[in-house]
Amino acid sequence: MSTDLLSALADLIGPAHVLTGTDMAPYAFDWRQREESHPVAVLRPGSTAEVAAIVRLCAEARVPIVPQGGNTGLVGGTIAEKGTGAVLLNLGRLNRIRTLDATDYTMIAEAGCVLADIQAAAQAADRYFPLSLGAEGTCMLGGNLSSNAGGILTLRYGNARDLVLGLEVVLPDGRVWNGLRTLRKDNSGYDLKHLFLGAEGTLGIITAASVKLFPRPRQVETALVAVPSPAAAVALLGLARTGTGDSLSAFELMPRFAFDGSREILGRDQDPLSAPSPWYVLLEASSGMAGPALRGQVEAVLETALDQGLVTDAIFADSMEQQRKLWLIRESLPEIGRKIGGAVHTDVSVPVSRIPDFLAATIAAVTAYMPGIRPYPFGHAGDGNIHFNIGRPVDMEGAAYLAHAHAISDIVHEQVLAHGGSISAEHGIGNHKAEELARIKNPVELDLMRKMKAMLDPDGIMNPGKVLVR
Amino acid sequence: MSTDLLSALADLIGPAHVLTGTDMAPYAFDWRQREESHPVAVLRPGSTAEVAAIVRLCAEARVPIVPQGGNTGLVGGTIAEKGTGAVLLNLGRLNRIRTLDATDYTMIAEAGCVLADIQAAAQAADRYFPLSLGAEGTCMLGGNLSSNAGGILTLRYGNARDLVLGLEVVLPDGRVWNGLRTLRKDNSGYDLKHLFLGAEGTLGIITAASVKLFPRPRQVETALVAVPSPAAAVALLGLARTGTGDSLSAFELMPRFAFDGSREILGRDQDPLSAPSPWYVLLEASSGMAGPALRGQVEAVLETALDQGLVTDAIFADSMEQQRKLWLIRESLPEIGRKIGGAVHTDVSVPVSRIPDFLAATIAAVTAYMPGIRPYPFGHAGDGNIHFNIGRPVDMEGAAYLAHAHAISDIVHEQVLAHGGSISAEHGIGNHKAEELARIKNPVELDLMRKMKAMLDPDGIMNPGKVLVR
Repeated sequence: MSTDLLSALADLIGPAHVLTGTDMAPYAFDWRQREESHPVAVLRPGSTAEVAAIVRLCAEARVPIVPQGGNTGLVGGTIAEKGTGAVLLNLGRLNRIRTLDATDYTMIAEAGCVLADIQAAAQAADRYFPLSLGAEGTCMLGGNLSSNAGGILTLRYGNARDLVLGLEVVLPDGRVWNGLRTLRKDNSGYDLKHLFLGAEGTLGIITAASVKLFPRPRQVETALVAVPSPAAAVALLGLARTGTGDSLSAFELMPRFAFDGSREILGRDQDPLSAPSPWYVLLEASSGMAGPALRGQVEAVLETALDQGLVTDAIFADSMEQQRKLWLIRESLPEIGRKIGGAVHTDVSVPVSRIPDFLAATIAAVTAYMPGIRPYPFGHAGDGNIHFNIGRPVDMEGAAYLAHAHAISDIVHEQVLAHGGSISAEHGIGNHKAEELARIKNPVELDLMRKMKAMLDPDGIMNPGKVLVR
Repeated sequence: MSTDLLSALADLIGPAHVLTGTDMAPYAFDWRQREESHPVAVLRPGSTAEVAAIVRLCAEARVPIVPQGGNTGLVGGTIAEKGTGAVLLNLGRLNRIRTLDATDYTMIAEAGCVLADIQAAAQAADRYFPLSLGAEGTCMLGGNLSSNAGGILTLRYGNARDLVLGLEVVLPDGRVWNGLRTLRKDNSGYDLKHLFLGAEGTLGIITAASVKLFPRPRQVETALVAVPSPAAAVALLGLARTGTGDSLSAFELMPRFAFDGSREILGRDQDPLSAPSPWYVLLEASSGMAGPALRGQVEAVLETALDQGLVTDAIFADSMEQQRKLWLIRESLPEIGRKIGGAVHTDVSVPVSRIPDFLAATIAAVTAYMPGIRPYPFGHAGDGNIHFNIGRPVDMEGAAYLAHAHAISDIVHEQVLAHGGSISAEHGIGNHKAEELARIKNPVELDLMRKMKAMLDPDGIMNPGKVLVR
């Protein structure tokens, strides 16, 4: 990068916000520690106009730009790859909530707002912003939208893109598209926002969004349920959707191995249920109405399920503290890999009705590949999103096992495709899965994606190598 | 059109499905009778492969194609304009429901399926497809999706695009994009389906879609409510969303003029409420749970609203017959224009919180333009979609009044834009609003739309003159 450009950038956003030394460290790293990040500079603009001006300068100089929010992504989407001469454009200073209209149930917030701050602002207005995920204390709205984040409440409220009414985007040529509408119905032309949502910063930089708010849940019922099989879990899901008037907000499946693993991690000796079970469901229903009605509905669902043999045991959380305790089981599951000293992690989805077949086939396939392997698929079964994770055999070294990581995730992905699924459910493609995407994606779709990229970013300066291989 | 091409088309799909004479009449007309349609032929293919082959032949010969479903659109979107040499491609024979998976809550249906048939198929599987609009007995899925139809349940279930998980599209070059996934979470690349949804056939032809199903409502509460003002109605909406646990499915606002008009049309002498009111709300809440809980919730909302002066009177429907009777009031409103011998119709939206200001300002503006004019704005206030319709002054001839139609709708649209709204909420752009769109749309957005069109349809053969002016 030329010193002329660097000084032009410093003039533009202030020298304090152009980092080129060791001060880049808080931005130039990979959350999963799988890769190194080597930006030539980290830029921290303070406004949309500054973002636009940076993009114009970089576009002229053909300097690649890697947009970044909270940098909590899991697929290398915010890595500045060595030798590319890319700058990291961190949106963290664009952190204002511009408007919140409680009557309209909408909010306009900037890309650098931390998700938890957005949730809190909604709550302060007696409203609810339902995007919720593990990284919510650190991740930022722009990243959530650019990666179309999922999380635990997708079943009820949809993915991140479903919560968006409008966007402000800096295009790869530095123009600003102000599409910050707060309309529930608008059929005046092509819906362009969905192009940028989930594009991982490869088509432009989301600088702000207008999002939907919802009535605040006043009653939440959480239950841990023992089920004999994934098929029973899927049947229970159908009962629960109908029997709660579609108030079901979360439905997490986990096998015994994961359940036991979480108990170890959490240091809980006692099994909360009366007897071991091969599978468990953590389910939650929520309602904007306070009162005992919802509990009655969930209880009725579970009684029916018990009669039908779909459920063998269940406990309810009777306080917020108990709810928290149940959720900790689920939240500890990503730690199991470290705990057992070696696991392959995946993020896949299949149609809900195919979960049982997919699990059976994939458990069989990875076990055939390596006897003694320990699959523990868990996740958001309510929307078909399974983190099909697989631990090393007890008698194999972690490093030796992880040498098979690619082969094992290929086996999982092969089964995903055979069951009509997706190799990326909620984490995105980043640079980790870009080559695989190019290999497996429907050629017509891939061609359309490439044309879209070439049209919006002909010089390929926006987050190069992510989503689409160069 | 050359006779060679015609005979090639007849060889392709069978001569019985290539119409060129008076047998074109059932397809070559405008639902609103505002325009004439002059296709050189009407083509009725029987499969996606036939659609693709037609498009390839027409693309080679540069023959424009106007796709058509049930032909119930209101903005001239399926008109073959005179002199363009366009063919009408009617999708009516692609009318199979390919799959219905009740466990997965999904269905894959072809573009020519009549909406009511899709609703019935869902119901037969104890599921629910919530798209519902006046034309549902005639309109077809492909048209619903191409125009991103709204309707009365948008408040609860979203617009047509929100119900779609995947699409099959014939592209302008005749390639078929098979994007018929049934996944709730899929972050494997750009989300292309939203480009074709709402594009009114200008970017390709939707031939099939995978759609979301929902639990079937088992309890529906319908109430007609007298409110003193639009501001009271918007406040009631907030109470009702919260107080029913977000079970509110419809929230229709209408002024006294429209209410009285509907009573005349329906021949109902008796006012169902005890005293006249300046404004009315027809609201509906629905739940997948049978039982008295929902009625209690709606009653509690209305009692609170009564205490707060937001509501002056209300009646509940106590049977399905009474529900039907209340809905007939709303459904008769589009007839008022004919009844009073001259009205200007619009389809606009504003943010929900701005409805009261928008209504007041627009009533004042049209009245300033023409004293004695009779505005009767009504519609889906729950999602900000108002049909701001305006009747002729009693002492003016209908024809003389309608000479002002453009000027009057321009005044309405000016107020819409001043209130952050859209000139097309649910009907689309078609050819009626294409020139206006080119005039008022944000230039960056318009430029992106044009680039998208040029990229996908470089020869401009797909529904020319619709959405984007030539």
